[in-house]
Amino acid sequence: MIGIFDSGVGGLTVVKEVMKQLPQYQLVYFGDTARTPYGNKSAELVTRYAIQDVRLLLEKGAKLIIAGCNTASAVALDALKREFPDVPIFNVITPAVAKAVSITKVRRIGVIGTTATIGSGIYERLLREKNNGYQVFQQACPLLVPLVEENWLRKPETKMIVRGYLSGLKAKSIDALILGCTHYPLLRTLIQAKVGRRVRVVDPAEETVKTVQRFLATHQDIDSALAKNGKHIFYFSDVTDKVRNIATHWLGQPVKIEQIKIE
Amino acid sequence: MIGIFDSGVGGLTVVKEVMKQLPQYQLVYFGDTARTPYGNKSAELVTRYAIQDVRLLLEKGAKLIIAGCNTASAVALDALKREFPDVPIFNVITPAVAKAVSITKVRRIGVIGTTATIGSGIYERLLREKNNGYQVFQQACPLLVPLVEENWLRKPETKMIVRGYLSGLKAKSIDALILGCTHYPLLRTLIQAKVGRRVRVVDPAEETVKTVQRFLATHQDIDSALAKNGKHIFYFSDVTDKVRNIATHWLGQPVKIEQIKIE
Repeated sequence: MIGIFDSGVGGLTVVKEVMKQLPQYQLVYFGDTARTPYGNKSAELVTRYAIQDVRLLLEKGAKLIIAGCNTASAVALDALKREFPDVPIFNVITPAVAKAVSITKVRRIGVIGTTATIGSGIYERLLREKNNGYQVFQQACPLLVPLVEENWLRKPETKMIVRGYLSGLKAKSIDALILGCTHYPLLRTLIQAKVGRRVRVVDPAEETVKTVQRFLATHQDIDSALAKNGKHIFYFSDVTDKVRNIATHWLGQPVKIEQIKIE
Repeated sequence: MIGIFDSGVGGLTVVKEVMKQLPQYQLVYFGDTARTPYGNKSAELVTRYAIQDVRLLLEKGAKLIIAGCNTASAVALDALKREFPDVPIFNVITPAVAKAVSITKVRRIGVIGTTATIGSGIYERLLREKNNGYQVFQQACPLLVPLVEENWLRKPETKMIVRGYLSGLKAKSIDALILGCTHYPLLRTLIQAKVGRRVRVVDPAEETVKTVQRFLATHQDIDSALAKNGKHIFYFSDVTDKVRNIATHWLGQPVKIEQIKIE
């Protein structure tokens, strides 16, 4: 199975992308709704949670992991690779950066994300490693996760808040913008409208699943270990009506949801 | 020591009220910032967390507990009394209801709170028990906690969201409004302005601490077991810069903060 974890429901946007690009592969998802969100918590704590999340997915039979959570990708990736050296673990940040680099003409890239993701400095670090004069402009948008979870996707209040967050980035003349949080693709239309048509928006889920696809094409041993019956299972550490509604609504189909304790 | 717990920083508004009304008493606080917020989680989970929170405070020497969290008060109070039958445990809901009942002339009371608090139906139940024809009108306001935690107390976006949440209640001709979440007193001025001067706003923290004060006056044995050196200590399960800033800013003084693990 392909295992995907997230702090809560956000990683379902990555699930949706896997269902689209790799429809035959069986998925196991873990959303840590008992401790959600991760984005305003410390790097040490998010790392501890992420390790527990991966361990749970491996126990459930996952052979390949996607950190479907930008916050965990940003702060915990090195720790996860140290903790699980034999497991292929993918993150949602590296592929997004590669895509942004490939499309920017002015070498000015914007990033929006949670407080923890932006505070990690991961995007600056990755772009500096490219050593090619890329400039990155970042904006933490802590209110977008609660707004998306309330399904306030087209409300005037949301438009006003999105405009406020993006106005500074717009003034920096970026031409690529990374949606550095798995909730943000649900606001993509609104974000695109506010940032203007000259700016290309990068959805990390899309790029991440393309990376996984390429990896599987060249790693037959791992690919053949992955079940391909399309029977997915979704674990959450706290199952509320909201979780059920969001899962069904975002994925566009009813899914098998189970509650599981994590500590 | 008087022990106060909350899902995170919200209970600090109760701390502030204890410092004002009972300044000599030593306080121990626990804010579960590693799992915050509670307000959008299930009643079963919040109950489990609340039991762990109280146990931690008792281990630290608390002899009297205040659930400084409306969500925990709403869903876990009976379970806490069963689990800790010998400990005086106060909640922030009963005193607020008593106050609202004492001031309403039209017997129409409004309540705002988190999704979990409003969903619990606790206010309706308590007012029905009064058996005197009180009508209660409720509104879940899930976005107010993140707005307060971002310190967006006077932003136009916040005004717009508060107005939206309160417009329905205003139309119900209430004359008392309970702030059913410990974050909301920080928005009191704004809420009062939006709901109009005819409506009296009830801050549960004020009423709760008055209740504790009356209890101590008539329970000398417990009162004499409480240290009165005013040396407070604040435990959080995750200490970030934001937690430090909010604690200092809300309480108006630097405080001793320690991180502690909870599971």
